[in-house]
Amino acid sequence: MNAVIELLQNHRSIRKFKPDPLTPQQTEAIVTSAQMASTSSNVQAYTIIAVTDPAKKAELARLAGGQAYVEQCGLFLVFCADQYRLKLATEHNGEAFHQNTESFIVATVDAALAAQNAAVAAESLGFGICYIGGIRNNPGEVSSLLGLPELVYPVFGLCVGVPDQEPGIRPRMPREAVLHPDAYSEEAVREGIRAYDEITYAYYKERTGGRTLTTWSRGIADKHKQPVRAHIRPFLEARGFRLN
Amino acid sequence: MNAVIELLQNHRSIRKFKPDPLTPQQTEAIVTSAQMASTSSNVQAYTIIAVTDPAKKAELARLAGGQAYVEQCGLFLVFCADQYRLKLATEHNGEAFHQNTESFIVATVDAALAAQNAAVAAESLGFGICYIGGIRNNPGEVSSLLGLPELVYPVFGLCVGVPDQEPGIRPRMPREAVLHPDAYSEEAVREGIRAYDEITYAYYKERTGGRTLTTWSRGIADKHKQPVRAHIRPFLEARGFRLN
Repeated sequence: MNAVIELLQNHRSIRKFKPDPLTPQQTEAIVTSAQMASTSSNVQAYTIIAVTDPAKKAELARLAGGQAYVEQCGLFLVFCADQYRLKLATEHNGEAFHQNTESFIVATVDAALAAQNAAVAAESLGFGICYIGGIRNNPGEVSSLLGLPELVYPVFGLCVGVPDQEPGIRPRMPREAVLHPDAYSEEAVREGIRAYDEITYAYYKERTGGRTLTTWSRGIADKHKQPVRAHIRPFLEARGFRLN
Repeated sequence: MNAVIELLQNHRSIRKFKPDPLTPQQTEAIVTSAQMASTSSNVQAYTIIAVTDPAKKAELARLAGGQAYVEQCGLFLVFCADQYRLKLATEHNGEAFHQNTESFIVATVDAALAAQNAAVAAESLGFGICYIGGIRNNPGEVSSLLGLPELVYPVFGLCVGVPDQEPGIRPRMPREAVLHPDAYSEEAVREGIRAYDEITYAYYKERTGGRTLTTWSRGIADKHKQPVRAHIRPFLEARGFRLN
């Protein structure tokens, strides 16, 4: 154990912020850290939109499904998978640009690796963070608001700001269900779900003073018993992505 | 600037390792850090296969395109996007499981966020790391070797081990081409490509004693002038993913 691992293992999402903005130096430290994350063959296939304009933050909070902390936080970063920059670079060299599901995965992963470095850097400076997948509720409107060109899509937002709450750490799935030595074990997964349901039942019960009596797997079932965000595939196609 | 940000900004991939294995405590610290990364609505839609079996590591090195460091490193982690665990949890509650492009993105991003925490934790312990996207060269064979069920795919591997080289830090794209205040700027991207081509030309020239005279955008063009890993979409479909 060291101070870095302690920081990583003490992460919890913050959903209430003081309005203090970040200094330019703090934003720079966070973004430079993001940029130093690994990237597939150095393609760096992501773009970060740093939203500080109050009107845009308010609109993004609404588009994300009414998440007030998007508006409240000092800095809202939108991490985008960006194949447009690669297309410009390819055409700059007189070649036709090709893309498919593989390049979509590369760009999405590149955005996520950079974002997690940003999150860790922000937390090391004492800020709280919260990922906002809710911007995929209305990806077309978000893209228009941020002026995103074709072949760029907003993967998620990241709230960064001074925490105005002190939530506890949420227990994760038992390690045995997530980490498999040398081969996948379905038995370990089934046992992990069972054990984690007990853990989460007790956690929700305690946290809500007995009002919420449910389990992790029940929540997963409720989420996946119907399609979620079925508009994503048509949205991506409309933005020029070819998922073949 | 603090010690965490310094660690993040000093990252470089390591491609030559001493054979020392990790202790169980070190692997545990790395994996527990990975598990504490943010996860979309707590779905935790990823699985880590920790490969230490020498024969499997040798086979993975071959399947990744002959990358010897996959075999040499002390620990090889394969990060998988895992919707199968979600399917088991959903069916355990008597519901039918739905998936689409959105849930594919969620699982891929969850795997990447966890992996980047693992990478940072490993580097904080003095290990070197290298992401291995090359396992997507032969994803079917990798899946068989690791016993992955349907709805699980290997996104990338992560070499972790004691560094046996001291490479320099690779310069990243100018910040202005990656970080946009409030809206995407195509002009900033075009200018960034131009500036980064100059930086990378000088970097490759210096690093190879004048033998390699090329630019970043030329490399991007060479990579994208034809489809890369066109087998990924059919592979995913064969493994049960529905990208609709």
